[in-house]
Amino acid sequence: MKLTILGCYAATPRTFTNPTSQVLQIKNHLFLIDCGEGTQVELRRNKVKFSKIKHIFISHLHGDHFFGLVGLISTFRLLNREGELHVYGPKGIKEAITLQLKLSNSWTNYPLYFHELVSKEPEIIYEDDKVSVETIPLKHRVYTNGFLFKEKAGERKLNMNAVLKKEIDVLYYKKIKSGKDMILEDGTVIPNEQLTFDPDPPKSYAFCSDTVYKPDNIPQLQGTSYMYHESTFLEAHAKLAEPTGHSTARQAGLMAKQANVEYLILGHYSTRYPDLTLFANEAKLEFDNVLIADDGKVFDFENLDD
Amino acid sequence: MKLTILGCYAATPRTFTNPTSQVLQIKNHLFLIDCGEGTQVELRRNKVKFSKIKHIFISHLHGDHFFGLVGLISTFRLLNREGELHVYGPKGIKEAITLQLKLSNSWTNYPLYFHELVSKEPEIIYEDDKVSVETIPLKHRVYTNGFLFKEKAGERKLNMNAVLKKEIDVLYYKKIKSGKDMILEDGTVIPNEQLTFDPDPPKSYAFCSDTVYKPDNIPQLQGTSYMYHESTFLEAHAKLAEPTGHSTARQAGLMAKQANVEYLILGHYSTRYPDLTLFANEAKLEFDNVLIADDGKVFDFENLDD
Repeated sequence: MKLTILGCYAATPRTFTNPTSQVLQIKNHLFLIDCGEGTQVELRRNKVKFSKIKHIFISHLHGDHFFGLVGLISTFRLLNREGELHVYGPKGIKEAITLQLKLSNSWTNYPLYFHELVSKEPEIIYEDDKVSVETIPLKHRVYTNGFLFKEKAGERKLNMNAVLKKEIDVLYYKKIKSGKDMILEDGTVIPNEQLTFDPDPPKSYAFCSDTVYKPDNIPQLQGTSYMYHESTFLEAHAKLAEPTGHSTARQAGLMAKQANVEYLILGHYSTRYPDLTLFANEAKLEFDNVLIADDGKVFDFENLDD
Repeated sequence: MKLTILGCYAATPRTFTNPTSQVLQIKNHLFLIDCGEGTQVELRRNKVKFSKIKHIFISHLHGDHFFGLVGLISTFRLLNREGELHVYGPKGIKEAITLQLKLSNSWTNYPLYFHELVSKEPEIIYEDDKVSVETIPLKHRVYTNGFLFKEKAGERKLNMNAVLKKEIDVLYYKKIKSGKDMILEDGTVIPNEQLTFDPDPPKSYAFCSDTVYKPDNIPQLQGTSYMYHESTFLEAHAKLAEPTGHSTARQAGLMAKQANVEYLILGHYSTRYPDLTLFANEAKLEFDNVLIADDGKVFDFENLDD
């Protein structure tokens, strides 16, 4: 699993900072999460192949999370995209995009599907045999969802020493990896656990932006591997967090501790602060494993400790 | 008069090229013309003061001329703009912008006026005592207007030698500059032309993008000081120009010659070509005074020959 931060700053795009957008690579998927103005250029800058993006998840319809979407959809058209594109976002997103495509008389030449969200409870919005994606209901100034991306448990791993010692034919490997016991020709049963190891534990990634500190979500987020949580403010401006629908870095740390996640990734910074380490320092008052997002940064989760 | 090119490339924004947007400084106005995605960042990069932009002219509703508008309007709000903003563009522009502001629950806290255009004939859409702006009907794949910005003739210039020699009181200067003759106390009439020089000849700027070669517009453009004319293609791809609603550099040169303009500025380049001088070379087959727009370039028209 790999996360590329295209932009992680609040409010307006500026010369050297971008609004929210990120790409999650998980089990052969490239999921685009949020799409502030300029996202298509940041995708190019980070050499993300446009055609590999088949699913775009939009948390809410504030401009810094959404104004780059219509341009990206239009550029896909100009590049003669053929593959389907699925867009998941709040109700209204379809009308906003299709109206603009209609006005420019440039409907897509590839299949474009909108999946409009209205539920205030977590719901699974995408699922295949390898991953699932569910909404995380957030609390902001407008209807907002985070997204929880979960790997499914993979096949069991063959214990090759054991398999070779028992002289099991390669034809049975697939069955054994699926967890079945092996029955030899003489009727002897070899329990699966003697032939396999546990698969890698499935990992998960939670995207939580924009939101106030919302402990209601702790059960859903319990044990998440990597949680991106917005930290627009520092405690010095804690009074601004609730009315603007945002969190402080310390509150993000508290969520991480309470939800017992493995790693917390901070982002959605107000541009009033001079130094991102200030956010990390505050979050670390509550939780140890704090990572700092920044534009262009790539988190390769398999090699985080390198 | 000064023109700042924020972006002048066709189709999609890329890492090193921007879609169409430019700022025309004329008689204390800062007019923003077109607003492709990323325009607000280019305004910052070029140090254009946001609050000085009071009028935005949008030629047509293709994304590369328009997708940056909603973000700019939203950013003005976040920056607590107070002054009026006037947006001139094709019918539909108001719905496209207001729908998005409604969805994000962030209507502007400053007065925002839309002036929707539908006429297929030239019409004056803005006028004050110093400048006028009229539409130039263009021919593209969707309803499109260029814009012709005209200075009005200024006051006559005092011939200080003559004025001092005649011992005329400073109280009468304003009247003389307005073109009136001077009547001395003894009844003697001094004709205005003995006391003044002609004012600087008023200048004009025509923005013509996107369009096919359209000689219908020659009478309106006759004698224009500076004409920006799109040159998406070179003659090698002339066959593409008509069906896509664009022009070649040579056609832009031909328009400049036929309309007898002072200077031609080329822009709206297809990104398929490696070198902008190719456009200039083709246009120069028809017309001598060719200037090449490029992102970040500033044309200071008072000092063009420097």
